[in-house]
Amino acid sequence: MCSEKKYIYSFEEGSLDLKPLLGGKGAGLSEMTGLGLPVPPGVTVTTEACNLYYETGEELPQFIKEGIQDYLTELEENMDKKFGDDANPLLLSVRSGAIISMPGMMDTILNLGLNDQSVKGLAKETGDERFAYDCYRRFIQMFGEVVLKVEAYKFSRKLDDLKEEVGADNDLDLTVDHLKELIDKFKRIVKEEAEVSFPQDPMEQLITAVEAVFGSWNNKRAIIYRDAHDIDHDLGTAVNIQTMVFGNMGNDSGTGVVFTRNPSTGENKLYGEYLLNAQGEDIVAGIRTPEDIQTFKDSLPEVYEQLVEVTQILEEHYQDMQDIEFTVEKGQLYLLQTRTGKRTAKAAIKIAADMAEEGLIDREQALLRVEPEHVEKVLHRQIDPEAEIEVIAKGLPASPGAAAGKVIFSADKAEKVAENGEKVVLVSLETTPEDIHGVLAAEGVLTTRGGMTSHAAVVARGMGKPAVCGCDLIKIDFEAKEFTVGDTTVEEGERITINGGTGEVILGKVEMTEAKLSEECKRILKWADSYKELQVRTNADNGTDASKAFEFGAEGIGLCRTEHMFMAADRVPIVQRLILSESAQEKQGALAELEPIQCQDFEEIFAEMEGRPVTVRLLDPPLHEFLPNLSELVEEVTKLRVKGEQEELRKKEKLLRKVKNMDESNPMLGFRGCRLGILIPEIYEMQVRAIFKAATKLATEEGVKTELEVMIPLVSELNEFEILREKIEKVAEQLLAEVDLELDYKIGTMIELPRACMTADQIAEKAEFFSFGTNDLTQTTFGFSRDDAEGKFLHEYLEREVIKENPFVTLDAAGVGKLVNLATESGRQVNSDLKVGICGEHGGEPKSIALCHQYELDYVSCSPYRVPVARLAAAQAKIRNS
Amino acid sequence: MCSEKKYIYSFEEGSLDLKPLLGGKGAGLSEMTGLGLPVPPGVTVTTEACNLYYETGEELPQFIKEGIQDYLTELEENMDKKFGDDANPLLLSVRSGAIISMPGMMDTILNLGLNDQSVKGLAKETGDERFAYDCYRRFIQMFGEVVLKVEAYKFSRKLDDLKEEVGADNDLDLTVDHLKELIDKFKRIVKEEAEVSFPQDPMEQLITAVEAVFGSWNNKRAIIYRDAHDIDHDLGTAVNIQTMVFGNMGNDSGTGVVFTRNPSTGENKLYGEYLLNAQGEDIVAGIRTPEDIQTFKDSLPEVYEQLVEVTQILEEHYQDMQDIEFTVEKGQLYLLQTRTGKRTAKAAIKIAADMAEEGLIDREQALLRVEPEHVEKVLHRQIDPEAEIEVIAKGLPASPGAAAGKVIFSADKAEKVAENGEKVVLVSLETTPEDIHGVLAAEGVLTTRGGMTSHAAVVARGMGKPAVCGCDLIKIDFEAKEFTVGDTTVEEGERITINGGTGEVILGKVEMTEAKLSEECKRILKWADSYKELQVRTNADNGTDASKAFEFGAEGIGLCRTEHMFMAADRVPIVQRLILSESAQEKQGALAELEPIQCQDFEEIFAEMEGRPVTVRLLDPPLHEFLPNLSELVEEVTKLRVKGEQEELRKKEKLLRKVKNMDESNPMLGFRGCRLGILIPEIYEMQVRAIFKAATKLATEEGVKTELEVMIPLVSELNEFEILREKIEKVAEQLLAEVDLELDYKIGTMIELPRACMTADQIAEKAEFFSFGTNDLTQTTFGFSRDDAEGKFLHEYLEREVIKENPFVTLDAAGVGKLVNLATESGRQVNSDLKVGICGEHGGEPKSIALCHQYELDYVSCSPYRVPVARLAAAQAKIRNS
Repeated sequence: MCSEKKYIYSFEEGSLDLKPLLGGKGAGLSEMTGLGLPVPPGVTVTTEACNLYYETGEELPQFIKEGIQDYLTELEENMDKKFGDDANPLLLSVRSGAIISMPGMMDTILNLGLNDQSVKGLAKETGDERFAYDCYRRFIQMFGEVVLKVEAYKFSRKLDDLKEEVGADNDLDLTVDHLKELIDKFKRIVKEEAEVSFPQDPMEQLITAVEAVFGSWNNKRAIIYRDAHDIDHDLGTAVNIQTMVFGNMGNDSGTGVVFTRNPSTGENKLYGEYLLNAQGEDIVAGIRTPEDIQTFKDSLPEVYEQLVEVTQILEEHYQDMQDIEFTVEKGQLYLLQTRTGKRTAKAAIKIAADMAEEGLIDREQALLRVEPEHVEKVLHRQIDPEAEIEVIAKGLPASPGAAAGKVIFSADKAEKVAENGEKVVLVSLETTPEDIHGVLAAEGVLTTRGGMTSHAAVVARGMGKPAVCGCDLIKIDFEAKEFTVGDTTVEEGERITINGGTGEVILGKVEMTEAKLSEECKRILKWADSYKELQVRTNADNGTDASKAFEFGAEGIGLCRTEHMFMAADRVPIVQRLILSESAQEKQGALAELEPIQCQDFEEIFAEMEGRPVTVRLLDPPLHEFLPNLSELVEEVTKLRVKGEQEELRKKEKLLRKVKNMDESNPMLGFRGCRLGILIPEIYEMQVRAIFKAATKLATEEGVKTELEVMIPLVSELNEFEILREKIEKVAEQLLAEVDLELDYKIGTMIELPRACMTADQIAEKAEFFSFGTNDLTQTTFGFSRDDAEGKFLHEYLEREVIKENPFVTLDAAGVGKLVNLATESGRQVNSDLKVGICGEHGGEPKSIALCHQYELDYVSCSPYRVPVARLAAAQAKIRNS
Repeated sequence: MCSEKKYIYSFEEGSLDLKPLLGGKGAGLSEMTGLGLPVPPGVTVTTEACNLYYETGEELPQFIKEGIQDYLTELEENMDKKFGDDANPLLLSVRSGAIISMPGMMDTILNLGLNDQSVKGLAKETGDERFAYDCYRRFIQMFGEVVLKVEAYKFSRKLDDLKEEVGADNDLDLTVDHLKELIDKFKRIVKEEAEVSFPQDPMEQLITAVEAVFGSWNNKRAIIYRDAHDIDHDLGTAVNIQTMVFGNMGNDSGTGVVFTRNPSTGENKLYGEYLLNAQGEDIVAGIRTPEDIQTFKDSLPEVYEQLVEVTQILEEHYQDMQDIEFTVEKGQLYLLQTRTGKRTAKAAIKIAADMAEEGLIDREQALLRVEPEHVEKVLHRQIDPEAEIEVIAKGLPASPGAAAGKVIFSADKAEKVAENGEKVVLVSLETTPEDIHGVLAAEGVLTTRGGMTSHAAVVARGMGKPAVCGCDLIKIDFEAKEFTVGDTTVEEGERITINGGTGEVILGKVEMTEAKLSEECKRILKWADSYKELQVRTNADNGTDASKAFEFGAEGIGLCRTEHMFMAADRVPIVQRLILSESAQEKQGALAELEPIQCQDFEEIFAEMEGRPVTVRLLDPPLHEFLPNLSELVEEVTKLRVKGEQEELRKKEKLLRKVKNMDESNPMLGFRGCRLGILIPEIYEMQVRAIFKAATKLATEEGVKTELEVMIPLVSELNEFEILREKIEKVAEQLLAEVDLELDYKIGTMIELPRACMTADQIAEKAEFFSFGTNDLTQTTFGFSRDDAEGKFLHEYLEREVIKENPFVTLDAAGVGKLVNLATESGRQVNSDLKVGICGEHGGEPKSIALCHQYELDYVSCSPYRVPVARLAAAQAKIRNS
């Protein structure tokens, strides 16, 4: 009529490039048609037609209606079928298909074209009258609901009434006559509710259905969805009109779903299932058990061969593993849909590696195909996705992987039970340095208090053990030796499983999949290394972690936290003596005991890294962290007072005074980090001696020179750095002079306070490296105490989308990231040799790694189990930005 | 000999402009000489000569020596005296005089020119042989010590020995013969120690003295001082050689010190004292009591008249009050020094105001003459500077002013004792909202814990009451009702005085000067208002504070903290019920009780401000601040448990559970501010209702429309602001609609987190004003918890100059200030109407106010007693920057 534009594309005319016009589904069907694959013929009415529909007052313009009619005529000729015919009827499906799939839109109407006449044709053709009338009954119901907006329950109530009346247990017990009766009733419902007769004219059915699809673009649910996801309201949806094919026309017919490769293992072999003489719904309904696709070659060998050929064409065309729906009608194969197949982590890695080896994709593509989280998943034991699980509570996902074992409430007992060969999950309020042996003995840890940075969480992540923390729904009764959660009580010795990746606590022991770093995974990571620009280091505080990280490909240690060395059960008493010392002599005594211990630790770590860079952070936490908890001590002293036990009381009272004296309102912002180093210099001096003694020993005895980087934490002001730098140099130079050794070392600082970022240009004049401590930087920038926020409001903030992403998980680009970028730029402006890295937990998180790449940092550092993740993420960041 | 340069200036040749060459003293003497005032003649050897002295190997070049000789010959002629003469000897003083005065340098040698001959001449001329020989004895001693570097004790021991030998109690008991004997002994000491004979040649004495002055420029103490104060080592010192005059030549001679105005009151009347027939030292030594300068006009009327004239000339010339030393030798007035006189706060204000009125200086100069702190000092009672005080401890200067009273250890008792008309100082560990009545009743507060932002400090500052906080040297024994500090024990009821301006705790009651806002002060502040660009508002949480601030010139309220309204003793129980409520009904009940109370508070505040802008901040602190202390509760519960008191125990255990549940590791970074507002919206809704009800009541009943500004605290993310803005608008619009009132109001946010600064451009799109909460912003930017830092490390940091200034006192320009500036600029870029102010305590601190002016903020807000300070500081910032 008017317009030069083309509003209707047959599948032969379309292609993937026209997706904005044809929508996802239409473009896919066209693409397959274009590849010469057997697709039931059809047309797509474009998204522009949808817009036109709205422009002309929610009516399909006449010229489009005519266009559809013209195509239909053509189709009838090609198919040798007639729309509405009582012998050989043409039946159609009508489906929506926007560019982005979204909920709320009208999806599918099948078997369009059925009416009182053509239902007879269908019965004849299929030889199954009951099937034909059931199709018709369903069509009226579907059309009534989605096109004519009749409330669904009106139809289903009639169906139920009839079943009760005739004593039918389920739909299949209804006879053809019952169905005919139901069809009459359904027509009456349509008449009463929609105030129109159920349209017998197939063309009218079609136009109304197309208009209904377009109309559903602007229904309330769709609008809300688009608003929420920032999707343009003008995109519009397309409509696909396609010839129906039937898989239930005898034993030369069938239907199935295949994956071009095994979506579970990645094996390059057709995978899937099928049913002969059946429709797609039959597979979904589960009435008959589908057959393995491998047996299809015996049933319909020629069709099978064609299917294999077709799926290979599709995989090659889309360059990815495909998930394909097909129907066979009387020996004729039809493809109804193809899409990129979902897969497990293991399969994703194998498929990407294999396809690159096969030359189907290049290495860059292969690297982009694997999600960084896939790599971590295969490093940890996981709960079998098929397992049925009973989740009884959910805490914080504090350390990934799954663990199952007997519930044990104390570290000592956990150790004993584990020694007897039993698997144990340690369950406690929180863990302390005294519980380390329990954590070590357990398969995993569950705590009811504490957040992602709690002792339990940090220790578990370091050990690669699963942990769920801060699960405050669980109430432990230590006397009764049981915990309750809601109505459930779990006694000590009962088995639970925890999922440290989701925070789930599960009753009983569930099936798991074992961890394995496959050859394909190693290959992918090797490729990643050749692309990435960011160096990947690890956070490791002992030789075991360092060794594990090295195995996972760490190129050095970005953060070695010396305080973790203080936390072992045999060391805490010495540290406490140090803190409580009342004379210089006592203090020196404690330090002298600690020095060889720390030195030994450093020796092990340095040896593992074989000369690679190691950044050692001097003592950071406030000293009261090593002392008993104030409330508990108050309770103890009060008890002693009432009981009048004088000697013990005096001892504890003295301790209490000290603990009260050292107590801080906000320890996070208190007397810690370099502030300790400046005011109590003996501790840092001891640590520096231990570091350099270890390094010189390794150098002289093994000839391995460690690239030492001594890091001063919590600097907010250049003077702090300068004062400590001088002290460190003095101790180091003296030790090196003693053994007459030349050893290059760097002195730098952790940038973890906003003021350090704002004055980075000053600090960089004296510092040789910056390492962003983004955990603390996030805390101070947001004013979020992580421990408090995660328990008190952060969860709800995330749920309500007050903030979009947990800034402790993903680096906050708008605030914290901006500070990191600013500090990096201004630091490098005055010191072009400045080495810059990040050692917060963000260093192992892909989106944050992408930001670090963008900020042009030199390295990221993360826990050992995140190292492979970081290697891949760093490569992806590079590939995506070049 | 060589050089075109002039190295020697007679006082006639010099002037103030030549200060770099002549040093401060030389330039001053020249200036007075140039004004035609009677100055004993002399020369200045320049600072360049000093450098030349070093260049030529620490010797005075010959041509300079000759220059000095030449001038001396001239001087002898002019004075009709002869150097070294036994009848009429010319005597000189030699003094150092650098551009900046500094310690460690050789200062003064008097009576140079005395030798075995000229001492006789001096005896003759003065008619006092004993005086002449004592001068000679002293000259040898002084010259020996400072020029010839003989150790001082060698001389003083000989003097003591002699006194013991002859049975003299003090120097004056020594006869002429004793002195002659001593002179011989001193000469021998010089010979033995310095290995030279004491020089009899006056010219040699002079040259050696000049070289000694130059030599002292590079002594160790002077070098260290210059290093520490960044003073250039090349400045050099000048040397002044001046004719001696004597005030002890009979009753027509004398000496004195005068101020051109009263340095204590500022009164425009000559002030000072004098002695006839005396030398300057006699006034200092205090052997004779000097006379009031007013009686001088009776003693020597002509000289007095000349003195008055001369001092007026000097004051007019220097345009400031002068402190002048003079000597009268035989009826001839000589001026020896003039300098700007030190003065009290009160005098500074009166002098500046008077001088401007007199036309001596203009108003800008007057405003710059008064230090902002002067203005605060006159608002508070101060310890009399003359009083002798015994300081027993020093805490934090938490609220300025001085208070004296009986030590009382509990708020209840303080109230009772005060009701009996006794003055009381409340002494406690810390104060809580329950102690407010005690603070109100007390003259001042002394706490042993807590910092500058502790409850006691904040409340005391608000009330204008002196407070010393965190004085942890004081140990309170509540059972014995006493406190000890070191060896001192103070019992309840004993009197102490506290100085809230210095943190000093003083034994007993000391003399004080009363507070008064003089007419002159009011005038100065009025002028300040006409210059300043910054608006000055106040922080006020109640009608009393608002009224006081209004009286002090506040132009609005920049911060009204609604939580302080919760803290009164009668309100805390309601707030606790609100927090502990277990049903919506209970919660609503508590809120319904609080609403009219808050409404009443707002009414009073709004009424006081008479329509000026009032910024009300919605609830900010974490709710657990209103609950009992955890440790104390643990102690209580433990006691109850041991005693087995079941009913009370159950009650307290329930409370303990709640308190434990709400306890936070870092409340500063916890569940507070807008986070509460979002998750517990009922509280903010109640507050907004109370605010708008109060405003509409005032508007409808009194016709006064308050410029309302509702402030959302602790925003770190735009979404937080938007969510709350919407809620506030809804409540406000509904209330305004009910009374059919148009009322403009603004909704803005407190910018107190680094992330808010970094995302200020986003927040400013929706916010109408920013108010920088620089207290919290300083805490998060530095990572300093103020309470912890001030007790644990900040003090030492400041003492060691790790940081130069307390960032909680003076805004940290390099870090926090940079963030403030960044946020202001980026906020205004997207919203040019954005109103920007500061409401942290920095708002009342002059240096910080200067920064705020520089950042072009719209206003500063500070506590009522700082308002006048801020008005003056704001004017000074403007004047200094234009």
